[in-house]
Amino acid sequence: MTYCLGMLLDAGLIMIADTRTNAGVDNFSSFKKLHTLVDEPSRSIYACTAGSLSMSQSVIGLLQEGLPPPGGGVDREASSPDLNRTLKDAATMFRAAQLVGEAIQMANATVGQALRAINIDSWVSMLLGGRIGDGRPSLFLIYSAGNFIECTPEVPFLQIGETKYGKPILDRGLSHSMPLHEAVKFGFLSFDSAMRSNLGVARPLDMLVMPTHRTSPTLTRRIEQDDPYFDDLSDRWSRYLHQATENIPNPPWMDAAGPA
Amino acid sequence: MTYCLGMLLDAGLIMIADTRTNAGVDNFSSFKKLHTLVDEPSRSIYACTAGSLSMSQSVIGLLQEGLPPPGGGVDREASSPDLNRTLKDAATMFRAAQLVGEAIQMANATVGQALRAINIDSWVSMLLGGRIGDGRPSLFLIYSAGNFIECTPEVPFLQIGETKYGKPILDRGLSHSMPLHEAVKFGFLSFDSAMRSNLGVARPLDMLVMPTHRTSPTLTRRIEQDDPYFDDLSDRWSRYLHQATENIPNPPWMDAAGPA
Repeated sequence: MTYCLGMLLDAGLIMIADTRTNAGVDNFSSFKKLHTLVDEPSRSIYACTAGSLSMSQSVIGLLQEGLPPPGGGVDREASSPDLNRTLKDAATMFRAAQLVGEAIQMANATVGQALRAINIDSWVSMLLGGRIGDGRPSLFLIYSAGNFIECTPEVPFLQIGETKYGKPILDRGLSHSMPLHEAVKFGFLSFDSAMRSNLGVARPLDMLVMPTHRTSPTLTRRIEQDDPYFDDLSDRWSRYLHQATENIPNPPWMDAAGPA
Repeated sequence: MTYCLGMLLDAGLIMIADTRTNAGVDNFSSFKKLHTLVDEPSRSIYACTAGSLSMSQSVIGLLQEGLPPPGGGVDREASSPDLNRTLKDAATMFRAAQLVGEAIQMANATVGQALRAINIDSWVSMLLGGRIGDGRPSLFLIYSAGNFIECTPEVPFLQIGETKYGKPILDRGLSHSMPLHEAVKFGFLSFDSAMRSNLGVARPLDMLVMPTHRTSPTLTRRIEQDDPYFDDLSDRWSRYLHQATENIPNPPWMDAAGPA
């Protein structure tokens, strides 16, 4: 299993991904799911992946090498270099999302098809985030069929993988106008919820924080198994939760001794 | 969709169920999903149902009327009355859970089979709670195949239906030693999370609280759409959540102005 979260706020973009992969419950491993696709002064593009690891790696590989020309030709050397088939050439993040969707469709038609032939259901979905030129950061969710949606201020986050356990805290607390350091706390609490309820989501976590203001650099960080900040946040949250429920008045139709 | 929650604490049993049913997103209705199966001085047995409404009603009907004798005979009038095929005759809650499992299997073989024949996937799962005689309250989850598990102190709750959104707060906060009025708050917060994240779960909620000490009566209550206590609990919880995240220190590798 996997849980990846992207949050797009006025102040910037945050992406967080766990690293656990498993085939059944007895074959656990740890793989990076937050990938740097392009990191140049004029463009930074990142992706989080959920689904089959071989499918994910095929898609990332296709994107790194550049997609073959439309029409199914594979003679990449001979094709025109101005076909804009790589993320380095994409003029906008929307165009980048289209290329990622196309790469997913290619993986479906190759690796996915081979797996379906032996009755293995295989898929990959992705979060794509970053910015090109002087644009603001943007964030997309690319579904397993290659279609995609863009994150908008009304609901300033997108999730893939094991999304449900970590969603209520975001629904309740996250807002587009929040400072980045507050949003990071909500993101970590969302992961803490998912990790407590599903063994298939686990630290280390990989994260990046890309401020909208270009004067601040993009931060990338790995949160290890024993990260003291994350442990402290989780402990405090449990304590505050108990304090909060104690501070909520008792139901008026029950007294402390039992139902009235 | 549906969400039903049973909590079995040292202090007693709590069962909560929503009332929303829907076929698609444009056919919503409200049906009671917390059913009183037996309510006598010496035994009180309740069930919450999730799944197809017609299947649920078939199962409840079978249990109210008494199951036909084993072997598939339907000549109930002629059968021996001492076969213990009704919940009123079940000697223990374990035996009651067996009967409920059998009723589910019968509904699978009749209504379920008819629906499968026209390619409609139909199922029902249930929470069964209550007590017989002077025993402590007990709680079971009966799966859609009719097999079942019993709630134990290590994880003092069982859920059916849309379970994931409301699980993290229970994983974090609920304990077997908690007083009933505190557990009711956790139960309501769990429902509040599920209702915010899935339109298919909605008030009114039905609940019952059965204290372990028989001197206190069992409380049943409907929480309506505009229940002021529930609204206040939800508002306070959102406020406390924001206070809590503000009180959690900022990540040491970020300052308030952005990533360091």
